Formats: sequence, structure tokens, C-alpha cells
Amino acid sequence: MAKQKKQPRPKAETPKGFRDYFGHEVTERQEMLNRIAEVYRRYGFDALESSGVETVEALGKFLPDVDRPNEGVFAWQEDDDKTWLALRYDLTAPLARVYAQHRNDLPTPYRRYAMGPVWRNEKPGPGRFRQFYQCDADTVGAPNVAADAEICGMLADALETVGIPRGDYIIRVNNRKVLNGIIESVAELQKQMTFPEGLSERGQREFETLRTRLIASTDNVMRTLDKFDKIGDRGVRELLGTGRKDASGAFIDGLGLPEYVADGFLAFLHAKGETNEVTLQRLREVVRYSQEGLQGVNELEEIATLLARQGYGPEQIIIDPSVVRGLGYYTGPVFEAELTFEILDEKGRPRQFGSVAGGGRYDDLVKRFTGQEVPATGISIGVDRLLAALRAKGRVGGTAQGPVLITVMDRDRMGDYQKMAAELRGAGIRAEVYLGNPKNFGNQLKYADKRDCPLAIIEGEDEKARGVVTVKDLVLGKALAEGMSHEEWKEQPAQEEIARGNLLAYVQEKLG
Amino acid sequence: MAKQKKQPRPKAETPKGFRDYFGHEVTERQEMLNRIAEVYRRYGFDALESSGVETVEALGKFLPDVDRPNEGVFAWQEDDDKTWLALRYDLTAPLARVYAQHRNDLPTPYRRYAMGPVWRNEKPGPGRFRQFYQCDADTVGAPNVAADAEICGMLADALETVGIPRGDYIIRVNNRKVLNGIIESVAELQKQMTFPEGLSERGQREFETLRTRLIASTDNVMRTLDKFDKIGDRGVRELLGTGRKDASGAFIDGLGLPEYVADGFLAFLHAKGETNEVTLQRLREVVRYSQEGLQGVNELEEIATLLARQGYGPEQIIIDPSVVRGLGYYTGPVFEAELTFEILDEKGRPRQFGSVAGGGRYDDLVKRFTGQEVPATGISIGVDRLLAALRAKGRVGGTAQGPVLITVMDRDRMGDYQKMAAELRGAGIRAEVYLGNPKNFGNQLKYADKRDCPLAIIEGEDEKARGVVTVKDLVLGKALAEGMSHEEWKEQPAQEEIARGNLLAYVQEKLG
Repeated sequence: MAKQKKQPRPKAETPKGFRDYFGHEVTERQEMLNRIAEVYRRYGFDALESSGVETVEALGKFLPDVDRPNEGVFAWQEDDDKTWLALRYDLTAPLARVYAQHRNDLPTPYRRYAMGPVWRNEKPGPGRFRQFYQCDADTVGAPNVAADAEICGMLADALETVGIPRGDYIIRVNNRKVLNGIIESVAELQKQMTFPEGLSERGQREFETLRTRLIASTDNVMRTLDKFDKIGDRGVRELLGTGRKDASGAFIDGLGLPEYVADGFLAFLHAKGETNEVTLQRLREVVRYSQEGLQGVNELEEIATLLARQGYGPEQIIIDPSVVRGLGYYTGPVFEAELTFEILDEKGRPRQFGSVAGGGRYDDLVKRFTGQEVPATGISIGVDRLLAALRAKGRVGGTAQGPVLITVMDRDRMGDYQKMAAELRGAGIRAEVYLGNPKNFGNQLKYADKRDCPLAIIEGEDEKARGVVTVKDLVLGKALAEGMSHEEWKEQPAQEEIARGNLLAYVQEKLG
Repeated sequence: MAKQKKQPRPKAETPKGFRDYFGHEVTERQEMLNRIAEVYRRYGFDALESSGVETVEALGKFLPDVDRPNEGVFAWQEDDDKTWLALRYDLTAPLARVYAQHRNDLPTPYRRYAMGPVWRNEKPGPGRFRQFYQCDADTVGAPNVAADAEICGMLADALETVGIPRGDYIIRVNNRKVLNGIIESVAELQKQMTFPEGLSERGQREFETLRTRLIASTDNVMRTLDKFDKIGDRGVRELLGTGRKDASGAFIDGLGLPEYVADGFLAFLHAKGETNEVTLQRLREVVRYSQEGLQGVNELEEIATLLARQGYGPEQIIIDPSVVRGLGYYTGPVFEAELTFEILDEKGRPRQFGSVAGGGRYDDLVKRFTGQEVPATGISIGVDRLLAALRAKGRVGGTAQGPVLITVMDRDRMGDYQKMAAELRGAGIRAEVYLGNPKNFGNQLKYADKRDCPLAIIEGEDEKARGVVTVKDLVLGKALAEGMSHEEWKEQPAQEEIARGNLLAYVQEKLG
């Protein structure tokens, strides 16, 4: 066989948009997920782990009507039958496939949680990766809003369990049906104003046209309402009406809706009152002409009542019609959890931490596969954002994570050192023997520094003969340690000589 | 825009060779991995999580010298720069990339563990999936066999920690250098027998040719030795020598090596003695003419000494030259953990459970990237096999996993039921309210059955009025429950009426 041409060395690089997670980045996330899973399980939710790979057909969003499926997912073809496969882009699409596939074996309602990586074939950016974790809980097959209320209460419990104290988060609940109801109510209002004497046949047709137009502009209306935070009442009015100059001076066309339509939507955005009762009362007023709208308000009321009965107060979960994000996607109640404490942004300015979880009711999950409508509601936690929040609050990390380092003073006595490590580990203490080249003691200390070792143990020839070991407190002595010889280093105050027999007890006490 | 043709319904199916994991399949694996991680951390190993996606270039094994990378991995091209990406097929190749990429920031030695899914683009078979879990621990940058000993001890600890008791597993240690030494020693022996008076110049050339031939047939020799289990001494002798008829009557060519060569290898395979000392003594004899072989024996001795010093006995870890699997891949010590208890195979016959973990030293891990040789040693646990073993031993599963079910007798009192659930959860008990259509009480019971609920709570109008609830023991009453009316069901002995105020205490006691 001819020798192959020598290959150039491969580059040691993650593909762009991917990253590695080291040490506490991994363990802290796992701990957080374990705690969340524990809460979900307590609510009767069962774990589900589907594989990272699905058929493009089952994922659905990206049907391969061309040779290459759309961008957005990582996809490839099977070698044999040319089936398109892809990495899942979220945990909801696989849930739909799983429920449709196994529905005869699964209980109804099916409560499941799932945690794991998802992949997006998107342009990466700062803090924006092409693989990231999601953590979802969904109830499939429960039409009643008791399922939505349960999800909200569970989310509050999960946040508190991982370390977000009450008062530092708020879960806002809104309902897509209320928004639909406003549009209907506004149409009805328009009818009454345009045809105060009632409708002729022709008038009826005109009214239907107007109504259809209003419903067709729902997406634009939602986009406008979602800017409320930034542009306020006046901005929303302008964009719903005749248009508006933005900050750059450019003119943005308005939707051309009459003033009283804007009144309706602003009443919706401002409906949040001191209590849920007040909010619900105001919402009822705004949607008074719409059956769907009133049903939406009733659903919100039922959610509020159920949560209150379980002891969740308005400082945890609140009806808030200004939550517009998500209204486009969902079909009923929507939820959004926001962290309300401030952190400093990259420029050192304080800002609110913002959203860490969102979800709601979506009722056509399984229909794609079976033709049958199956009600579903769920929540997705932004794992990386929540973890970042816990770090910002000092709820994870901070403690020394490194092992106790047993230094090697005499390489022939590796067995003694290993025995020490075994003793400490036996008591649950993280410990290791230095396994690099022990010749240069400074390298051992540098290693301890890099590993964040809390303590270093030294047993040289002299110590061995006297039946003692030296224990160096590296947290205390860290700053001084670099570049020092073993002799200088032993003179530091942050070290003590103890009897070999007391090693375990001493280390236990030191580490608390 | 023209309306798209209606798509046929997608199939709700996992891609072939992939599967879903439900409930306890997920949680039991996670618990096992959490426990293993705890042991690894105690040994000073740090977590590493690299992404599922790597460049094909970095994965290495499948360099894209043709348009489509080789089979064996799932691969695709980036849209923009046409870089080939692939799902990782193990956790070792990514470790090499990570170490090469981050070596200036990582400590040396770098001890890391990793757990997660890997993907193989292979033909699936029964129990053989294209996505499965691996759980690895490796030490990079430690040339000393103290690192190998540490891995063996840690593996023993991990097995015991997850629930494999001492006596039910054995970790066998061998060394590739000893095998190399036998080949060298046999060559030397051959020289002495062929040229008893010493070598002429021409004799030296002939010897070198023989020696080279022997070394070149190392792979064949290993394949032969690996059949020792099945074909015994005689079979190995025949295959090393003149050839052999297999069970089907077909003749298999032998390697054509002289009888005394077979003597050497059989002495190797049989070297395991009553104690490690005896084994080591015998091995020294077989490799007496080889420096590398003697170094290999010394390494095994050092490993044995270090492990003994830490308290690991021969019932846990033992030097065993018959472990040939893995010798081909590794460069120094190799380890294999076997479970020694019997299980029943699919035909009901008892057989040994077999291997659950393997590993060893491999020293060219990082060289591909940097040109610099970096010593490394590690272990990989077969996650699914170990979990299957724990299930076979009754160490996981078995306990009721389902939630306490609070049935809905009166849908207007959902709040009361939710409050009950909240009370139970507050005490850490898994509990849920039935959220399907409550009209048919039988469906609620079927649901409880499907969920493996240990208890069902009933509070109908009558119970509510009297301040009591009925608690049904479903574990006791399971067999009877199906198809029964609420009234019949209440007559079963496996249920009790208790005061509503005692609910929590009663359930706590019931669940132990």
C-alpha cells in the first residue's frame, strides 16, 4: 500500500459557536438541575430523555421540501435510505414526537420533565452558543387550567429551591385569550360607534370586513404592545395610529387604527392593579364584548384562586397583562418568570436581571402526527441564565473547590502519600497526591494554586522521622506562595506541624 | 403566495437505532452517574463537558480525504465555510482536543472526568444503539504508574459506591509492555537456540529479520491470545503454530511460529498465581531477555504495592496477564473491571455478567495536535451495562416510584385538592392532583395504576362534610382495582378513613 502523504497537524479548536465547560461550571449546573428535577418529581412529573437526534420529518419545523433542509438545524442524510436526520433544536418538538409515538403506553395526563442540550445552527455571538441546555416541564392531555396553575406553582418552588429567595423573582401570568378578546371587543365597540342604530345587511358585511382586518393585524398589534416598556403610552398610541418618529428621526408607519382602539389596548396593558382582583375586574371591563376574552379572564381568575389556595402570594405569582412576549406563540395562559434584583451590566451600570423562564399553553402539539388535538402546557427554564443569576447572587460557587494536595517530597514513598489521600477520601474529603514530576517543589505549589487547593500536606524525610506532617493553609498563604523555595515557604505563618496520627481530624476541622 | 400542497402527516418515530428513556430509566442512570462523579471528585478529578459536536479534523479518526467523511460518525458540512463537523464518537478524542487547546490554562497533571452521550453511525442491533452514554476518567500529563494505580483504586471505589459489593467485581491489571517483552524475549530465545555460538554479521541480520517478523505479527498474536478463554491451551498452540480446525470443521491457518514461542505466550497467559508476588515472579521469568518486559513487570509491581498500601486487596484488584483485550490499543498498563456474579441470559441459563469498564495508558493522545508526546491514562465505564448489573442485583429500582394521587371527586374543589398536594410536597412527598377528566372515577384509578402510585386520596362530598379523607393503599389493592366502581372500591380492605388533619402524618407513616 502506498504511504499516505503526511497530514498537517489538526487544529485543536472547538467548532465555532461551541465551547467547553470546566469543573464547577459543570458541577454547579448539574447540582442546579438535580434540584430542579427533585422539585419536578415531587409534583409527579416523570423524567424523559429522548435522543439528541430526530428525523427532520418529526422535528417538523424544517420539512425538507428542498434537497437540503432549511438552516436553523444541524442536519444530514442517512447513508442507506437517505432519511434526513437532525439535532433537536428544543425539547418541545421531541416531546410531541414521543407523546404521539408512545401515547398508548403513556398515562394521560402525561407530566414529563426533560433537561439536556439542544442545538441551533445559527450565527453565534457573544454569550450565544450553538449548543446550550434547556430544562422543560410540560403536562400533555390536561385541558383544565389547573395544569397551568400547577406549572406556575412548581416554577416558583423550583426557583426558591435552587436559591432565588422570595422577593427576588416574580412570575407574571397573562392569557392569549384576553388579547384575542380585546380585539373582538374593540371590533364590537367599533360596530356600535359606526352603526349606533344597528346593522343593515350591508353594514353587517362592512363590520365583518373591519373585524377581519383587526384580527389579521394581531401580530402587528402584539409587536407594538411588546414595545410598551420602551416607548410608553404615547409611543404605543402613535404606532397603533398614525405613526411615529423613532429615536433616529426615521418615521415608522402606524397601523392606522382609530383612537378608541388604542384605548382598549392601553387599558389592557395598564390593567394590572394592586391586587389580582382589581386586575381581573379591569380586564373584564376591557373584554366585555367577547366570549373568548371573558373566558380568558375566568381562566386567569381560576389560576389565581388555585395558587392562593396553595399559599402562593402576589409577591411570587401575579396576573400581569403587560406580559406580551409569548402571546404570539401560545393559545391560552402564558407565564414568564423574571428576576427582580439588580446586577451590574458589562459597563458597570445596574440593571434588572430579567427573564429566566417562560411558557404557556399550546394546544396543537401532537396534532401534526395524529390529527387529534391534544391540550398541553409547559415551562422552559433558561438554564445558563438561571445559573448566571445564582452566581451573581453568590448562591453557587465561592467555596474552595480544589482537593487537599498531598505533596511528594520523596518519590519512593508514593505509597505513604497515597495512603494519606485514601484516609482523607475515606472521610469524604476531596484529596489527591501530586502526580506530576515532584522534583521542583515550586511546581507542586503552582499546581495547588491552579487547582484552588485549600490545604497542602508535606511529609518530607525529616517530618517522617519525627512522625509529623506539615499542613499549609493555602487560602491564607496563597498570595505569598509563588516563587518561594520549600524552606522559605515552611516559615510562613499559615502552616502548622501536626502529629501524623492527627492528620484526618486536623484537616476535617480546617475545612469545617 | 401560493398555498403549499398539504403535507402528509409525519411519522412519530425515533430514527432507527435511537430510543427514548422514560422515568426511572433516566433518574436511576443520573443517580448512578452522580455517585460516580462524587467518587471521581473526591479523587481530585475535575468535571469537563465538551460539546457533542467537534470538527471532523479534531476528532481525527475520520479525516475527510474524500468528499464525504468515512462512515462511523454522523457528519455534515457547515453552510458557510464547508468545514466538516461531526458528533463525537467517544469522550477521549474530545479530551485530546480540549487538552491541546487549553493546555496553558489547565493544571498538569490534568485529572478530568466526563459523562455524556456519544454517537456512532453504525448498524444498530438488539441492545445496540447509535447514541449511548459513556463515563470516563483520565489523568493527562502524569508519566508515573502511580496515576494508573490511582485510576484502579478509584474504579474499585466507584463500583462499590454505586452498589456492587466487594466480591462481586474484580479489576484485572495487565501491561502491554510485558507482552512486548515476551515477543522480544522469544526473539532472543530464538536467537540463542538458532545461533548457540553467538552471531556472525550475517546471523545478526537474520536474527533482526526474525525479530521484526515477530513484532509485525503482534496483532495476530494478540487476536490469538484473546481466544484463550474459548479455545484453551491447545487451541492457542495450534493457532500460533500450524493451524487448527474450528467448530464448523473449517481449517484456520496458523501463524507458523515455533513451539517454544507458544510456550512463552502460554506461560504469559498462565502466569497468574495465588498472589500478585507469584504472578510477578513468573512474568519476570517469561520476559527475562527484554528490558521493556522487565520494566512492564516492575510497573505492575509498583501498581500492586501502591494499591496494597491503600488497602485494596486481591479480591478487588489483581495482576492478571490473561487480560488481553485492550492490549492492542494501549501502550502500558491496562485495566478491566469484570462483574463476577451470575445472571440469567435471555434463554434462562446462568452466565457471568462480564466486563463493565476498561482502560489503560495511552501516550500519544495530544501529540496529533501539538507534536509533543503527553502521557495519559484513563478508564471508561460502560454506563448502560453497569446500570443493567445494578438492576439485576436489585440495587436500583424496585421501590414504588409513582406519586401519591389525590383524586378529584368534585371538580369545583380543585383548590382543596391542590392544597392537599402542596401539604404533602412540602414534606418532600411526591404527590399530584389528577388533572385528566375527573368524570369517570375508574379512569383516575387506571391512571394511578399506570403511574405506580402507592396511595390514592379521596375526599368526596360526604368525606368533606365529615372532615375525613379516604386513603387507598394501591400497592395492596392494585390487583382488585381495575374496572371497579367507586362504591365497590371503597369496600376493599386496603383503604382507611382518617381525619383530614392527620393526612400528612398518615401518608408519611404509610410510605415509611
